[in-house]
Amino acid sequence: MAANNVQLEPASVRGFRFAGVSAGLRTEPGRKDLGVIVADWPVAAAGVFTTNRVKAAPVVVSAEHLKRGKLQAIAANSGSANCFTGKLGLKLARDSCAALADAVSCAAELIAPCSTGVIGHLYDLEKYRAGIRDAAATLARDGLHDFARAIMTTDTRPKIASARLKLGGAEVTIAGCAKGAGMLEPKMATMLAFMVTDAAVRPPQLRTALKHALPASFNAITVDGDMSTNDTLILMASGAAGNRALAGRDLAGFETAVSDVAGVIARELVRDGEGATKLVTVEVRGARSPADAERVARQIANSPLVKTAFFGCDPNVGRIIMAAGKAGVPLDPDRFELAVGGVKVASRGALIVGALEAAASKMREREFVITLDLRMGRARSQIVTCDLSFDYVKINAEYTT
Amino acid sequence: MAANNVQLEPASVRGFRFAGVSAGLRTEPGRKDLGVIVADWPVAAAGVFTTNRVKAAPVVVSAEHLKRGKLQAIAANSGSANCFTGKLGLKLARDSCAALADAVSCAAELIAPCSTGVIGHLYDLEKYRAGIRDAAATLARDGLHDFARAIMTTDTRPKIASARLKLGGAEVTIAGCAKGAGMLEPKMATMLAFMVTDAAVRPPQLRTALKHALPASFNAITVDGDMSTNDTLILMASGAAGNRALAGRDLAGFETAVSDVAGVIARELVRDGEGATKLVTVEVRGARSPADAERVARQIANSPLVKTAFFGCDPNVGRIIMAAGKAGVPLDPDRFELAVGGVKVASRGALIVGALEAAASKMREREFVITLDLRMGRARSQIVTCDLSFDYVKINAEYTT
Repeated sequence: MAANNVQLEPASVRGFRFAGVSAGLRTEPGRKDLGVIVADWPVAAAGVFTTNRVKAAPVVVSAEHLKRGKLQAIAANSGSANCFTGKLGLKLARDSCAALADAVSCAAELIAPCSTGVIGHLYDLEKYRAGIRDAAATLARDGLHDFARAIMTTDTRPKIASARLKLGGAEVTIAGCAKGAGMLEPKMATMLAFMVTDAAVRPPQLRTALKHALPASFNAITVDGDMSTNDTLILMASGAAGNRALAGRDLAGFETAVSDVAGVIARELVRDGEGATKLVTVEVRGARSPADAERVARQIANSPLVKTAFFGCDPNVGRIIMAAGKAGVPLDPDRFELAVGGVKVASRGALIVGALEAAASKMREREFVITLDLRMGRARSQIVTCDLSFDYVKINAEYTT
Repeated sequence: MAANNVQLEPASVRGFRFAGVSAGLRTEPGRKDLGVIVADWPVAAAGVFTTNRVKAAPVVVSAEHLKRGKLQAIAANSGSANCFTGKLGLKLARDSCAALADAVSCAAELIAPCSTGVIGHLYDLEKYRAGIRDAAATLARDGLHDFARAIMTTDTRPKIASARLKLGGAEVTIAGCAKGAGMLEPKMATMLAFMVTDAAVRPPQLRTALKHALPASFNAITVDGDMSTNDTLILMASGAAGNRALAGRDLAGFETAVSDVAGVIARELVRDGEGATKLVTVEVRGARSPADAERVARQIANSPLVKTAFFGCDPNVGRIIMAAGKAGVPLDPDRFELAVGGVKVASRGALIVGALEAAASKMREREFVITLDLRMGRARSQIVTCDLSFDYVKINAEYTT
């Protein structure tokens, strides 16, 4: 998750306009709940979606519309996930595309609909249509922040990042935003994330860029181990930058920049995870294979006992060891080397009791790294997680998602 | 988890004596922390142990000693798990056996040592030895309750059950107890559980009885999805009842009784789960295979979002559907039938909005059942779970396990 030149702020991206309005789809009056991204013409696009076997209607429709690698607009609402809504839900997602297609004069098949919020409910199509007309009337080059606000649910703030770089003889911008908060795991660990660039990039290159970006960004984070039915990541490229066709180092540079922006947004999602007070990077080294490393890292990152210990600033080595052991990966605890915030707390399978106070003090910081070296091989994996706090329980016991 | 004739209380079981003493292994002064079960002679025994790849030293030693199907005593301490303690830990477990062997005059190889508590620490052998002498001096036929108290950690009460039945021409008693609280999942979902009977049963029959009992008892419960390094279940049979050799219906009756007692104790473990305010049975029906049914049930039973909704008495159908979808099992959400506390809240893939208030009122009870019918086949599975409350976070942020 390197972050070269990535800013935690919006940028305007040539070829795109954005809006975020209040359409009354949510119970809180006046809160923004409908965001729109419109390209000046049909542009190259690629997307990835949840692997949950229960897929929301907008996920089905967006995946279908993205098959040809072209989009002109995105309509994303909060307040209702339009999931577990059967045929009525599919019709609603298609009618929603038609509404935006009407308002901005493009084909409905060039629109990706996205929804987040309560599962099992349909939103009001009339309100939605009125909101779409509002949004179309307020589209702005600098509207990314408004868009990002409109898709928030239990998020406490919008998550936005952007980067500028030289590519194929032109100045290029990549900007993106996401909403997350809970239900962030495993794989495609966000509910909704959108990235746009003015670079000229062909759809297969966009797909490859997303594929490269995922393992160390949205697929390497977790909040609660739950996985949304609506996870969507879409990348659109307008070509307005006028760069020459990307190949070789330019293409690699583009992929790196997409990965960097995605990585920064992904970390922001965890930082703003429900009730999160700490951002913890779990790094597993010395595994026999990357899959083994990832399995162990995920078990640690998702263990309620480990996450409550993070919240309590308790260097509870035993829980980390326990979580590693339940990954089902061959291990020899007698070789384990474990460090918390750089302080070695276990070596060759034994606790370093004298180090625990120093480790506890590292854990009082808002960010720290747990490093477990299995000393079985050379593979490694990183998962970014947060703690499990009173507020996670409060938010989720009181909020109907 | 039928419960024919099972009482939630201790019983004396011919051929066994019990004790529970305070050996000073815990930080709380005077709290019982060392329990001993001693048979009047070497008896038939069987055990099952954690599948965590990190196994505590006492688990390694107990499994070794149980290989021949005979035991005479069990020594179980709280305050230290003696796990992640390398060769010193193994030596400590063996020395602990020797201490009890000395005190009750039997071979050290006939003793199963068991430990629960903080991982990574060794307990004080001198204190342990003194405690063993105390325990040996206070052994009593009616000491099961004292024993059960000594193995508690964050448990709020001992978990004890017993049953009496006619078997092979004799009156037979089965009694058992367990400590649990957190780290209850998956498989062998307890830290320590012990059952004794005066029936005459051969070791292979005991092993089979445990194997039959597990799927619907200790392997069908969860608190937090974490899995202990010390999970142990041991069953001992003294033969003092003088029944004729078990076969046919008698053997089946014995297996049923062991399953019933195990089932009752397992439910008590969940009921006393860390911070638990509710006992929820998750039943999945209509799956294509028992494995599919179990996978879906476990995802629902372990989802933090589902468990916080239980705590909040929120009939959040969407979260249950989401959790089912992430099991990786082929599903058709359009067929789902879902009931909460007997109130149908979703049918053929659509929410029954009018039913949610009635479902919420069922969820305000201390126990209820969630039934998800996938309508894909005939297989089913049940997992018993609890809610995720503020107190779970409080207990685990403040307690070093």
